[in-house]
Amino acid sequence: MKRIDSRAAHELRDISITRDYIPHAEGSCLIETGDTRIIITASVEDRVPPWLEGRGKGWVTAEYGMLPRATQNRNRRPVNSSQQNGRAMEIQRLIGRSLRAVSDLKALGERTVTVDCDVISADGGTRVASITGAAVALYDASRMLVNDGLTERSFMRELVAAVSIGVKDSDVLTDLCYVEDSSADVDMNIVMTESGGLIEIQGTAEGATFDRETLNEMIDSAESALHSIFAKQKAVLGID
Amino acid sequence: MKRIDSRAAHELRDISITRDYIPHAEGSCLIETGDTRIIITASVEDRVPPWLEGRGKGWVTAEYGMLPRATQNRNRRPVNSSQQNGRAMEIQRLIGRSLRAVSDLKALGERTVTVDCDVISADGGTRVASITGAAVALYDASRMLVNDGLTERSFMRELVAAVSIGVKDSDVLTDLCYVEDSSADVDMNIVMTESGGLIEIQGTAEGATFDRETLNEMIDSAESALHSIFAKQKAVLGID
Amino acid sequence: MKRIDSRAAHELRDISITRDYIPHAEGSCLIETGDTRIIITASVEDRVPPWLEGRGKGWVTAEYGMLPRATQNRNRRPVNSSQQNGRAMEIQRLIGRSLRAVSDLKALGERTVTVDCDVISADGGTRVASITGAAVALYDASRMLVNDGLTERSFMRELVAAVSIGVKDSDVLTDLCYVEDSSADVDMNIVMTESGGLIEIQGTAEGATFDRETLNEMIDSAESALHSIFAKQKAVLGID
Amino acid sequence: MKRIDSRAAHELRDISITRDYIPHAEGSCLIETGDTRIIITASVEDRVPPWLEGRGKGWVTAEYGMLPRATQNRNRRPVNSSQQNGRAMEIQRLIGRSLRAVSDLKALGERTVTVDCDVISADGGTRVASITGAAVALYDASRMLVNDGLTERSFMRELVAAVSIGVKDSDVLTDLCYVEDSSADVDMNIVMTESGGLIEIQGTAEGATFDRETLNEMIDSAESALHSIFAKQKAVLGID
Amino acid sequence: MKRIDSRAAHELRDISITRDYIPHAEGSCLIETGDTRIIITASVEDRVPPWLEGRGKGWVTAEYGMLPRATQNRNRRPVNSSQQNGRAMEIQRLIGRSLRAVSDLKALGERTVTVDCDVISADGGTRVASITGAAVALYDASRMLVNDGLTERSFMRELVAAVSIGVKDSDVLTDLCYVEDSSADVDMNIVMTESGGLIEIQGTAEGATFDRETLNEMIDSAESALHSIFAKQKAVLGID
Amino acid sequence: MKRIDSRAAHELRDISITRDYIPHAEGSCLIETGDTRIIITASVEDRVPPWLEGRGKGWVTAEYGMLPRATQNRNRRPVNSSQQNGRAMEIQRLIGRSLRAVSDLKALGERTVTVDCDVISADGGTRVASITGAAVALYDASRMLVNDGLTERSFMRELVAAVSIGVKDSDVLTDLCYVEDSSADVDMNIVMTESGGLIEIQGTAEGATFDRETLNEMIDSAESALHSIFAKQKAVLGID
Repeated sequence: MKRIDSRAAHELRDISITRDYIPHAEGSCLIETGDTRIIITASVEDRVPPWLEGRGKGWVTAEYGMLPRATQNRNRRPVNSSQQNGRAMEIQRLIGRSLRAVSDLKALGERTVTVDCDVISADGGTRVASITGAAVALYDASRMLVNDGLTERSFMRELVAAVSIGVKDSDVLTDLCYVEDSSADVDMNIVMTESGGLIEIQGTAEGATFDRETLNEMIDSAESALHSIFAKQKAVLGID
Repeated sequence: MKRIDSRAAHELRDISITRDYIPHAEGSCLIETGDTRIIITASVEDRVPPWLEGRGKGWVTAEYGMLPRATQNRNRRPVNSSQQNGRAMEIQRLIGRSLRAVSDLKALGERTVTVDCDVISADGGTRVASITGAAVALYDASRMLVNDGLTERSFMRELVAAVSIGVKDSDVLTDLCYVEDSSADVDMNIVMTESGGLIEIQGTAEGATFDRETLNEMIDSAESALHSIFAKQKAVLGID
Repeated sequence: MKRIDSRAAHELRDISITRDYIPHAEGSCLIETGDTRIIITASVEDRVPPWLEGRGKGWVTAEYGMLPRATQNRNRRPVNSSQQNGRAMEIQRLIGRSLRAVSDLKALGERTVTVDCDVISADGGTRVASITGAAVALYDASRMLVNDGLTERSFMRELVAAVSIGVKDSDVLTDLCYVEDSSADVDMNIVMTESGGLIEIQGTAEGATFDRETLNEMIDSAESALHSIFAKQKAVLGID
Repeated sequence: MKRIDSRAAHELRDISITRDYIPHAEGSCLIETGDTRIIITASVEDRVPPWLEGRGKGWVTAEYGMLPRATQNRNRRPVNSSQQNGRAMEIQRLIGRSLRAVSDLKALGERTVTVDCDVISADGGTRVASITGAAVALYDASRMLVNDGLTERSFMRELVAAVSIGVKDSDVLTDLCYVEDSSADVDMNIVMTESGGLIEIQGTAEGATFDRETLNEMIDSAESALHSIFAKQKAVLGID
Repeated sequence: MKRIDSRAAHELRDISITRDYIPHAEGSCLIETGDTRIIITASVEDRVPPWLEGRGKGWVTAEYGMLPRATQNRNRRPVNSSQQNGRAMEIQRLIGRSLRAVSDLKALGERTVTVDCDVISADGGTRVASITGAAVALYDASRMLVNDGLTERSFMRELVAAVSIGVKDSDVLTDLCYVEDSSADVDMNIVMTESGGLIEIQGTAEGATFDRETLNEMIDSAESALHSIFAKQKAVLGID
Repeated sequence: MKRIDSRAAHELRDISITRDYIPHAEGSCLIETGDTRIIITASVEDRVPPWLEGRGKGWVTAEYGMLPRATQNRNRRPVNSSQQNGRAMEIQRLIGRSLRAVSDLKALGERTVTVDCDVISADGGTRVASITGAAVALYDASRMLVNDGLTERSFMRELVAAVSIGVKDSDVLTDLCYVEDSSADVDMNIVMTESGGLIEIQGTAEGATFDRETLNEMIDSAESALHSIFAKQKAVLGID
C-alpha cells in the first residue's frame, strides 16, 4: 500500500503553527498541515451568554467557517442557507466542546472567549487541525488575561489536540488528506488531552462497517500521533 | 448506586414501536421509550439530488425536528434561527449516515427516501431512538417498493439500531433518560448493524475525560443492549 | 348524492380526543377526526409580550404547524420560506382569535398561554379541529392554574369549537374531508362559543359564488354540528 | 350615536380612483377613501407558476404591502420578519382569491397577472379598498390584452368589490375608519361580484360575539354599500 | 446631439414637490421629476440607536425602497434577498450621509429621524431626487420640532440637494432620464449644500474611462443645476 | 502635522503582494499594506448569470467579506443580518465595477470570474487594497485561461488599482490607516486604470464639506500614488 503523498501509514503531515498571526486578537495563529491552512483567533469579551449571567463563570465557544475558494470548486458564501451550514455547525460544536473540556470556566470569570477557525485552504483534517490550533490560540489568550492581571491563573488546565485516523482497504492510516478522506471506509476523529484523557471520539463507517479490533488499532494510532502533536504545540508555545 | 427510575445499570427502558402510524407515508412508526416519543415517516420520491442524477442510484436522507413542547419548557419553532438548529442538524446527519450504511443505493434506483423523525415528547435518547425507529419505517418502505414491483429486491441490506451509554460517577449506565443524561460525565451513542458491525461511535466527555478501559466497557454494554433492540425490531416487523 | 365515506350530508366524522397526551404541557390532547390527527399543547409562561407588560393581563396565542408527511406528498420543512407559511399564519391567527374570544385575559394575569397545534396527519378540516382540540387543552391548562393556586378562577369563560361546511353541486355538506374540500364550490369555517355566539365566520367561494339562502343553510348546518361537538368536548373534560 | 367623522351609520366615505397612476403597469390606479390611500398595479407576465405550466391557463395573484409610515407610528420594513408579515399574507391571499373569482383563467392564457396593492396611507379598510381598486387595475390590464390582440376576450368576467361592516355598541356601521375599527366589537369584510354573488365573507368578533340577526343586518348593509361602489367603479372605467 | 426628451444638454427636467403628502409623518413630500416619482416621509422617534445612547445627541438615517412595478418590468418584493438589496443599501447609505452632513445632531437631541424614500415610479435619478426631496421633508420635520417646543432651534443647518450628470459620446448631460442613464459612458452623482460645499461626489465609468477635464466639466454642470434646485426647494418651503 | 506612523503626507504604506497564495484558485494573492491584509482569489466557472446566457460573453463579479476578528473588536459572522452587510455590498459592487472596467467580456467567453476579497486583518483602506490585489489575481486567472488554450487572448485589457486620499485639518493625506480614516474630514477613493483613465471617484465629507480646490489636490495626490502602485503590481506580475 502506498499513500498519495508517500507518507508511511502512521506518519503525520508536517505541522506549522505561526502564533500571533492576527494583530488585534487576544490569541491567534495560522496552522498549516499539508495544504490545509486555518486562521484561528481567540477573542475575549467581558460578557457571558444570558443563561450564564451572574453565576461567576465564563464560557468558551467556537465558530468555524471556510472561505469560498478554500476547496477545489468555489462554494457560495453562507447567506442564510441552513442546509449548507449543517457541516459547519457540527464542527464548531465539536471544537467548542473540546476546548471547554480543558477550560476552568470559574477561573475565566464572567467572560466569553470565542474561537474563530476560518479555513483558507482545505485538504482534509480541517476539524482536527482547528482543535489543535485553537488550543494554541486559547493558550495565548489565557496567558494574556493572566499577564494583564485580569485572571489569577490561566483558565486553561492543559492542552488539547485532535487527529484523524482512517481505514482504507483494511489499512489504518493516520492524518488523512482530502483525497484519502474522500475514499476511506472509516473516518475517525479523536480529541485527547495532553494528560491522555479521551474527550471525544467520533468514528463513522462509510459504506463498510468496522469491528472492535480495528477500533482499537485506530485509537492506538491516534494516541501515538497525538504525542507528536502535543510536542509540537509545546515547542511553539515555548512550554515544556 | 440507584437509577432515578429504579432500572439496573444495564437495563433498557421498555420500547414500543407502532407501525403504519401515519396514513400517507410509505413507511412510518411511533417509537416510544420512557417518555421519549417520536413519529417517524419514510417518504419515497421519484427523484434524486442534482449531484446524483443519471447515476442509476438513489439517496436516503433524514430530517429531525422537535415539537415546541416536547421538552420541559417550550422552545420556539425554528424560524430561521440557525443557532438553534445546530443540534438538529448534527442529529439528522447522524441518522442519515446510519441509514445509508445499511442501504443498497443501487437497489433503490433513482429514488430519494426522506426519513422524518419528529420528537413529540423528549426524555433523553431521542437521536438513538430515532435511528432504531427509522430502521423500522425504512424497512416497511423498502418492502412496499418490492411489493409494488418498483424494485427487484429490498434496498435495505440489514437492520440498524442505536443506543446511548453514559458514565456517571464511574458507573456505566445503559439508555440514559433526560435527568441522567444532563448530569452524565460521558455520553456515548453507538450505532450498529444487525450483523454486529459498528457504523458510528460518538463519545463525548462533559467536564471529565474517559480512558480506554471505560471506553471498552461502554461498547460492551452497548452491544449487549443492541441485541435486545434488534430482537424488538424483528418482532415488530414479523421477521426472524 | 353520495359522500366519499358514505356519510349523510350533515353527518360529522367521529371525533376522538385524548387528553394529557404530552407529558410536560400544562394542557394537551390528541384530536382525531377521520384521518386528520393533531397534537395540541397549551404552554403557560410567566411573561407577556412587550406591548402588554405592566397592564395586569395576559395573552393567549396559537401556532400551527404540519409535519412534513402529514399530507399525501411530503412537504419541505418551513425553513424561512415566508411564501409557504402564508397558509399557516392565516390559520394560527384564526385559532388565536378564537381562543381569546373565550378567555378572560385579566383572570389569566400576566401570563402567556401558547397553544401549539401540530398536524401529524391531514385529511381536511385541520383548522377547525385545531380550534376544537385547543379548547380542551386550554381548559385543562386553566384548571391547572386554578388548582395550583396561581389564578383565582378559570380564565376560560366558556368552550369554543369550530366546524367546516361546504357546498358541492348545490349540496350543503358538513365536515369536509380532504377529497371533498379540494373540489368544493364554497368552503366555510364557523367558530362558535358554547353559548351559541358567533366568533368567526369565514366563507370562500372557489370558482362559483354563493347567495344569501345558501349562506343561511350553511350556518344552520354548522350550528347543528357544533352542538354535537360541544357535547363531545364536555364528555371528554368531564363537565356538563 | 354619532360617528367620528359625522357620517350616517350606513354612509360610505368618498371614494376617489385615479386610473393609470403608474406609467409602466398594464393597469394601475390610486384609490383614496378617507385617509386610506393605496397604489395598485396590475403586471402581466408571459409565464405561469411551475404547477400550472402547459395547462393552457393563467394565474392571477396579489401582493399587499404598506410603506413604513403609512400608519400613525412608523413600522419597520419587512426584512425577513415572518411574524410581522402574517397580517399581510392573510390579506394578499384574500385579494388574490377575490380577483380569481371573477377571472376566466383560460381566457387569460398562459400568463400571470400580479396585482400589487401598496398602502401609502392607512386609515382603516385597506384590504377592502385594495380589492375595489384592484378590480379597476385588473380591468384595465384585461382591456390592454384585448387591445393588443393578445387575448380574444377580456379574462375578467365581471367586476368585484368589497366593503367592511362593523358592530359597535349594537350599531351596525358601514366602512369603518381606523379609529372605529380599533374599537369595534365585530369586524366583517364582504367581497361580492357585480352580479350580486358572494365571494368571501369574513366576520370576526373581538371580545364580544354576534348573533344571526346581526349577521344578516351586516350583510344587508354591505350589499347596499356595494351597489354604490360598483357604480363608482363603472363610472371611473367608463362602462355602464 | 439631441436628447430623447428634447432637453438642452444642461437642462433639468421639471421638478414638482408636494409637501405634507402623507398624513401621519412629521415631514413628508411627493417629489416628481419626469416619470420619476418618490414618496418621502421623515419620522421622528424619541430614541437613538444603542451605540448613541446617553450622549445627548440624535441620529438621522434613511431607507430607500421601490415598489415592485416602479420599473419597466416588475421586480420581486425584497423578502430576504440580500443580493437584490445591494443597490438599495448603497443608495440609502448615501442619502443618510447627505442628510447628516447638514444636520446638527446635538440640536436634534436624543431623537432619531428616519427618512423613508419609496420610489413609486422610476425614470432615472431616483437617488438624487430622493436627496432633494428628503431635504424638504426633513426641513418640515425640523420645523415641527421647533414649533412643538421640543428643540430650541432647527437641527437642520442648511439645505442639501443632489443632481446626476452623465457623459455620452463626449457630451456632458445634466439630469439623465432612464434611457440616457442606461447607455451613458460615465454616471456621476453630486451632493452639495446650499452654501456650495461638496458633500459627496460619486463618478463611475461604464465601459469607458474619463479624464480630469471631463470631470471638471461635469462638476461645473452640477453646480449650475443645483442652484436651480435649491431655488425650487426654497420656493416650495416658503423660505428665501 | 505628523502622521501616526510617521509617514509623509503623500507617502504610501509598504505594499506586499504574494501571488498564488491559495492552491486551488485560478488566480490568488495575499495583499498586505500596514496591518491591512486581504486574501484574494479569482475563481473561473463555465457558466454565466441567467440574464447573460447565450450572448457570447462572460461576467466578472466580486464578493467582499471580513473575518470576525479582522477588527479591533470581534464582529458577528453575517448570518442573514442585512443591516450589517450594507457596507460589504457597497464595497463588493465597487470592486466588481472596477474589474469589469478593464475586462473584455467578449474575450472571456461564456464564463464567470468571481473574485473573493476576504479581509483577515483590517487597518484602513480595505476596499482600495482589495481592488489593487484583485487586479493581480484576475491577471493570473486571465493568463491561465490563455495558457490552457481556453481563451485566445487575455480578457484583461490593462491593470487597475485604487488608493484612498483623505483630508484632515486641511491636510491632504495619502493612504489613510484606520486611525486616520476614522477622524478624517473627507474620505475619497479613486480607481484608475494603468493608462491613467478614471474609473471611479468617490469622495465623502464627514461633518465638514470640501471645495473644488481640495478636490483637485486630492486627485493629484491619488494619481501620483497610483503610479507607484501600478509599478508594484507589474513588478510582482513580472510584466513591464
